[in-house]
Amino acid sequence: MKTFAEIQALFTEELNKLDWSRKPVGLYEPIGYILALGGKRIRPALVLLANDMFNGNLKEAMPAALALEVFHNFTLLHDDIMDKAPIRRGRPTVHVKWNDNTAILSGDTMLIEAYKLLAQVPERHLKATLDIFSKTACEICEGQQYDMEFEMRQNVSVLEYMEMIRLKTAVLLGMALQVGADLADAPQADIEELYQFGINIGLAFQLKDDYLDVYGDEKTFGKAIGGDILCNKKTYMLISALNTADGATKRELERWLADSTDNAAKISAVTGIYNTLRINEKCEDAMNIYFQKAVANLDKINIIEAKKHELRTLAERLMLRNE
Amino acid sequence: MKTFAEIQALFTEELNKLDWSRKPVGLYEPIGYILALGGKRIRPALVLLANDMFNGNLKEAMPAALALEVFHNFTLLHDDIMDKAPIRRGRPTVHVKWNDNTAILSGDTMLIEAYKLLAQVPERHLKATLDIFSKTACEICEGQQYDMEFEMRQNVSVLEYMEMIRLKTAVLLGMALQVGADLADAPQADIEELYQFGINIGLAFQLKDDYLDVYGDEKTFGKAIGGDILCNKKTYMLISALNTADGATKRELERWLADSTDNAAKISAVTGIYNTLRINEKCEDAMNIYFQKAVANLDKINIIEAKKHELRTLAERLMLRNE
Repeated sequence: MKTFAEIQALFTEELNKLDWSRKPVGLYEPIGYILALGGKRIRPALVLLANDMFNGNLKEAMPAALALEVFHNFTLLHDDIMDKAPIRRGRPTVHVKWNDNTAILSGDTMLIEAYKLLAQVPERHLKATLDIFSKTACEICEGQQYDMEFEMRQNVSVLEYMEMIRLKTAVLLGMALQVGADLADAPQADIEELYQFGINIGLAFQLKDDYLDVYGDEKTFGKAIGGDILCNKKTYMLISALNTADGATKRELERWLADSTDNAAKISAVTGIYNTLRINEKCEDAMNIYFQKAVANLDKINIIEAKKHELRTLAERLMLRNE
Repeated sequence: MKTFAEIQALFTEELNKLDWSRKPVGLYEPIGYILALGGKRIRPALVLLANDMFNGNLKEAMPAALALEVFHNFTLLHDDIMDKAPIRRGRPTVHVKWNDNTAILSGDTMLIEAYKLLAQVPERHLKATLDIFSKTACEICEGQQYDMEFEMRQNVSVLEYMEMIRLKTAVLLGMALQVGADLADAPQADIEELYQFGINIGLAFQLKDDYLDVYGDEKTFGKAIGGDILCNKKTYMLISALNTADGATKRELERWLADSTDNAAKISAVTGIYNTLRINEKCEDAMNIYFQKAVANLDKINIIEAKKHELRTLAERLMLRNE
């Protein structure tokens, strides 16, 4: 059984072997650029951890791990165009460093490259792997569509928000685990628990992101605190506040949403409203519920505890993180 | 052996069965819209004709035919954003009718849906079909990248242009035939000839498009004549003229390229230069060379002539068309 660190080292080695110095340079260079920006590489690690858990052959699972990382970065590339995001992992986004057309076309190429990698899994698993991958990929597009639609809507319920982040974020974590376990021929019931574990960790993970944007420490979080507040992003925090606040507080919150004259004052005032409404506690409670569900999923998997250790500690680290 | 018309009717029936009335509406409606715009449906017909030629089971080839049509329309959707094209088949393009973000995200979903369809081919053919599809899909992105780069460059050679349209247009026709024949377990040598037939027809087809933009009849061509001239599009005509013209004629051509005050005058003047330089004859000669190559490819295929009839007449129709 390999550790998370060992898995990540193995993966990074294979990722670095992918050659993006192809022609036309204008098409492939941005792919090498975004993949080299780093990130936590959690999705490929989940493929490999789940595979290792059921004594799979990591070599056979590696193409799927690579496919998921390339696919995930494709979604970031296209989402950044749609969200007009200037910065990704501290560096200019592809559509800023190059242009929108490059980001569209290099992104398309990455999606195709992800399928090329996926096609390298053992042939007996190819059909099933493809089916779950494509199903999930469509769900992620649906999640991004809902996310964009929610930004245009007045009222979004917490339930709608949770369904949106399930699609946009959680299913990819679930699918990573499912694919990894399936490639190791794990029992169907265990695969299903692992998938749900991924969904629940994914939901908790996104809630933590929303929470850290308000209550994180700028030094460790890696980006400015209050970014979501400044752009009125409909996170769990804001949606929950809009759905909880009574007349006067709601009017004050809405007044701040319409005001973008003083950034520091806006962050401070909105955070104050969240405090008054105890949105921080609500968010932590929701996070804990999903985390406990995830733990219950892991508990039910029918293998010895030692085999679950790496996933259990990874889940805990994702929950306790402050970055 | 089915006729082209019968094949098209069969295909249209299956295409219409695809259900795009899914949620979120904002994501799937544009997919239904672009697929309903029509078009010649040549690529799926090539899959099915090649399959039928080698006595394949059309039911088994249908998912690949559908995948190619969805994929082709995905490329149109994203190309139209990149080219800022307002009209497609007489109707507003998706990025105009909706917006850029919708066109990006619905396009991404179409690419994934194409792979979903492709995954439905018989499992013994899945790996080979996927590999040729993904290879071709990347080549098409490379072609689009070269096309955009050429628009920014001063000098493009005819050879470079032919390689660009091979990637952007011809490989998809070749791949359609290859996939259809492979699904019918055709001999490898015949598959290779069919692929080259597709490439050569594709090159001739694009040259015909370039030619018709200048020398077509507005009534039958279906769009305004001279559109490429007005936007200085680097077609075979313009590239060939720039590479053929001597000092004075080249300066006159370049002066017109810089002038966009009077559309009718520009079209008439540039067409006049093409006439003087006999670019029309050059283009027709090149078209005929590729068409003859395609005929030679078809001749070499080791089956009875009757089985080649539909492809032969389709190729002739594509050459003689004036629309």
